[in-house]
Amino acid sequence: MRVSFRWCLPVAVGMVTLWRVVVILLVAAANLEVEVWGFRPKTVQPLYRSTGKWKARHAHRVEKDQTWIWPLPAEWSKGESTLLVDSQLELVVRGALNQSHVLEESFERYIAHIFVHLTEKDVVSKIKRRKWGGETLQKLVVNVVSDDETLQLGTDESYTLQVPAEGKTSEAYLEAATVYGALRGLETFSQLCRFNFSIKAVQIAETPWNVKDSPRFQFRGLLIDTSRHYLPVETIKKIIDSMAFAKLNVLHWHIVDTQSFPLEIPSYPDLWKGAYSKAERYTMDDARNIVEYARRRGINIMPELDSPGHAASWGVGYPKLWPSRDCQQPLDISSKLTFEVIAGILADFRNVFPFKLMHLGGDEVDTSCWNNTPHVNDWLEKRNLSAHDGYASFVLEVQKLAIALDWAPVNWEEPFNEFGNLLHPDTVVHEWLSNDLVPKIIATGRQCIVSNQDVWYLDHLDVPWELFYLNEPLTDLNSAEQQRLVIGGEVCMWGETADPSDIEATIWPRAAAAAERLWSPVHSANSTATARARLSRFRCLLNERGVGAGPVRNYYAREGPYEPGSCYDQ
Amino acid sequence: MRVSFRWCLPVAVGMVTLWRVVVILLVAAANLEVEVWGFRPKTVQPLYRSTGKWKARHAHRVEKDQTWIWPLPAEWSKGESTLLVDSQLELVVRGALNQSHVLEESFERYIAHIFVHLTEKDVVSKIKRRKWGGETLQKLVVNVVSDDETLQLGTDESYTLQVPAEGKTSEAYLEAATVYGALRGLETFSQLCRFNFSIKAVQIAETPWNVKDSPRFQFRGLLIDTSRHYLPVETIKKIIDSMAFAKLNVLHWHIVDTQSFPLEIPSYPDLWKGAYSKAERYTMDDARNIVEYARRRGINIMPELDSPGHAASWGVGYPKLWPSRDCQQPLDISSKLTFEVIAGILADFRNVFPFKLMHLGGDEVDTSCWNNTPHVNDWLEKRNLSAHDGYASFVLEVQKLAIALDWAPVNWEEPFNEFGNLLHPDTVVHEWLSNDLVPKIIATGRQCIVSNQDVWYLDHLDVPWELFYLNEPLTDLNSAEQQRLVIGGEVCMWGETADPSDIEATIWPRAAAAAERLWSPVHSANSTATARARLSRFRCLLNERGVGAGPVRNYYAREGPYEPGSCYDQ
Repeated sequence: MRVSFRWCLPVAVGMVTLWRVVVILLVAAANLEVEVWGFRPKTVQPLYRSTGKWKARHAHRVEKDQTWIWPLPAEWSKGESTLLVDSQLELVVRGALNQSHVLEESFERYIAHIFVHLTEKDVVSKIKRRKWGGETLQKLVVNVVSDDETLQLGTDESYTLQVPAEGKTSEAYLEAATVYGALRGLETFSQLCRFNFSIKAVQIAETPWNVKDSPRFQFRGLLIDTSRHYLPVETIKKIIDSMAFAKLNVLHWHIVDTQSFPLEIPSYPDLWKGAYSKAERYTMDDARNIVEYARRRGINIMPELDSPGHAASWGVGYPKLWPSRDCQQPLDISSKLTFEVIAGILADFRNVFPFKLMHLGGDEVDTSCWNNTPHVNDWLEKRNLSAHDGYASFVLEVQKLAIALDWAPVNWEEPFNEFGNLLHPDTVVHEWLSNDLVPKIIATGRQCIVSNQDVWYLDHLDVPWELFYLNEPLTDLNSAEQQRLVIGGEVCMWGETADPSDIEATIWPRAAAAAERLWSPVHSANSTATARARLSRFRCLLNERGVGAGPVRNYYAREGPYEPGSCYDQ
Repeated sequence: MRVSFRWCLPVAVGMVTLWRVVVILLVAAANLEVEVWGFRPKTVQPLYRSTGKWKARHAHRVEKDQTWIWPLPAEWSKGESTLLVDSQLELVVRGALNQSHVLEESFERYIAHIFVHLTEKDVVSKIKRRKWGGETLQKLVVNVVSDDETLQLGTDESYTLQVPAEGKTSEAYLEAATVYGALRGLETFSQLCRFNFSIKAVQIAETPWNVKDSPRFQFRGLLIDTSRHYLPVETIKKIIDSMAFAKLNVLHWHIVDTQSFPLEIPSYPDLWKGAYSKAERYTMDDARNIVEYARRRGINIMPELDSPGHAASWGVGYPKLWPSRDCQQPLDISSKLTFEVIAGILADFRNVFPFKLMHLGGDEVDTSCWNNTPHVNDWLEKRNLSAHDGYASFVLEVQKLAIALDWAPVNWEEPFNEFGNLLHPDTVVHEWLSNDLVPKIIATGRQCIVSNQDVWYLDHLDVPWELFYLNEPLTDLNSAEQQRLVIGGEVCMWGETADPSDIEATIWPRAAAAAERLWSPVHSANSTATARARLSRFRCLLNERGVGAGPVRNYYAREGPYEPGSCYDQ
């Protein structure tokens, strides 16, 4: 029996209090309306069920002039009539794209979400049309201009959507340059549809709708980390589904790290001996399957191969990659094998990951292992290189390997901070320590991705959704040319404390706050006061679609609700 | 801005310490091997990713003589050969049951689980057969004796399963009295199949298998509570899926309570005005849909209509059901409307819920509202009834209404405790305060369901899986006649702090511990020491199938993992 007492609790309480003060100050500085909810220790459990009095808390108020679409479209207008949606709603595909499986499958998924409360489609459809009178919406006509289904960074995601006023016509009209724009439009359409329990039918309120939409940033990412905890293929697919609901479009797959190496690498078949177990692994077919599953939802997979740090698990299969058994990373720079293995991995990746960007990591490199290991130290000295020079040459060598395979390299910000002028001009710098860095990256003409960890790291459970929402990637960047170099942002779900049991509640709803920041025009997505009810509604929508999004108002992310109540209130 | 400070924290800490001492004493008394894990406050977040050294932790050790099936079958034998499962594995249905959709759909679901890592079935199948040589398993022959697909309390769930040794034959054989027994056998079969990442094929180890299985108890339940938090239809369906994996067979749907009334009642259409919101509702078609979805997985739905307490939400639509606006429950016993409404609800339920058992609640009734409300008090006095007599007469009247509709009534234990001799002899008493009561219920010849809240309430987050596992429903019952009256047990997921974001992690894996107790022979499911690794593996299986089961070893249920690690270790 092992009993550990919590001597650290007083310290933790002090830290919480301190952090709360920080949040209050931040919030005050930003002049925001943030409720700071009281923390309730999870240890106080009700021993009996409450028998209290019923309290009227009809949370689901219809607020006039509120537009519930999440994230908000670029432009829209709406009217005042209400349209009934036929439960036999048909998809009609026009334009260049004949018989797109991507579009048809997506439509089927949305039909399942929209009509979750109807079980006998034919019957209900007839009855409702009789009862309701008037014209119902019977067709969604989708016109896709291009028949090219390639998904890539910068793929056009714009669309226009017209939903008629009641009685005008029975067709809604969705037009997009690409099938992926059409998917974004389908998501918007699905969010307009609401089941009316009184008449048992799906309706669209405030018709006619005219939506003209396109994303503010081309890169809207979410990082998952399958090294700290293995995420089964099923879990990854569910995360991809949920990303599409928020119009995120890049899943940054931080595949391997110090703790485990779960992916098969055909060129070096012992690498996945570094997996946690024989079962916590992905085959290359799994990766292919995930890429295709994501593509059909308009989501790119950006793989990451982090080196020379964060790589100790590589040496389980190939111990020679370690400077020594006791000093396991950064990977042995003096060994030819190191770069052969990296070249092999990248070549294998290229067969599976079609995305233009390849994340090469390069962060948090502590070179003391190189100096402390005689043969590595000798190697450096012979070449008159400091360990720091070695770090630079390592990263640059890996960049070359990636560029030769037609990738644009992405690196975490440390290589930029340490030897930015040496990095390939096409390098996309992934800022994470502080977004003060963004103007400096831009000044070198390089592109960047914003993920400042103070507010966009999802594993920081004490960061409220408001701070996710208000993190503006273009702060202090005024010219269009500067702004264009910020290709987007990404929220990071580091996996130390995230596994299949809590990952959805840790990601959602806060990732949605960032998703609106990255999709919607800055002028319309600017106030947490107006976003609050809309985010609650989006969270409930995620729940209805089977996503375990957590309460919006909890002090700590991913905690369960503190008490009974409506989804819309918590 | 609202800031609430946590004056209650020292009290909570004291309570935790006290409870920990209780657990330690319990555990010592039961002479168990329980690790009491240190509680780590969730407030301590890593600000940076750890960069530590790789530690070899290959958790997924193959322990000899371990049988991984969860819950353990009644009887089994196994051999020493390993059989390759053809990725084109076919279902062949024989016996009385021609073309059972239940069986076919179920087989398709299991195929998807079993072959999650294979994407190119034909190719892989051929290659593997060549590489591996020998005969692969190509057919699962299922013989169902009865063509009756009625699912009910006591439906025969027994089955036998034979999986051949390698090279003997290409067919496995599953026989069952009913299609529901066949579903249990399919679950067992699916758990024998494991993907071997080295040869990229599904295998069954330790063939030949001969399994002869049937449940120890006919009632193996899980309660969900859709009043404290609305659970979307999708969430309920996912819970039903997961129950089937653990061979649970009754979903006790605690539909309404004080906080909200989410279900449509056609006879009294204003009742669901007591829902939290217009959207947090179920239509009767939803209920029908849920019942059918569950049936196809061999799971009965036992509805609950709790009265006269726990019913304040009824009065939102019909305020006359309340003694007064200020005193809302128990429901007004003096009003004819009260019993008309109950009769209406029960009649509507009867159209949708075919299960033999109807849960009528009757718990935690505080009659002070009756005495404090003049017209109710007058009514009681006129009839020379104490409030306690009123409570009895109320419950008995509702029992009559249910029995007239051909239901066997279930009541929580309070009516039994207060006026047990008056309860209908067919009453199934649902024990929850303490299982000391079980022998007393049995002594009156009545049946009972065991749910003692000290260890089988899932909302008690500090109860470890070991205590769920060791809760023996037949303690102190020696004769077969006595034992027969305990129809089973149920774990209760009360909804005060459970919503779609945390309910799966709160239910699993602890409900699985109870599921083995309820399914497997007491002699084989008796040691937490041997169950530990098996439960971990079952938890990982749930994760692989998309169920958010939490870590097994956390001190508090549903907390995320405390640190990086293998699913099998946490």
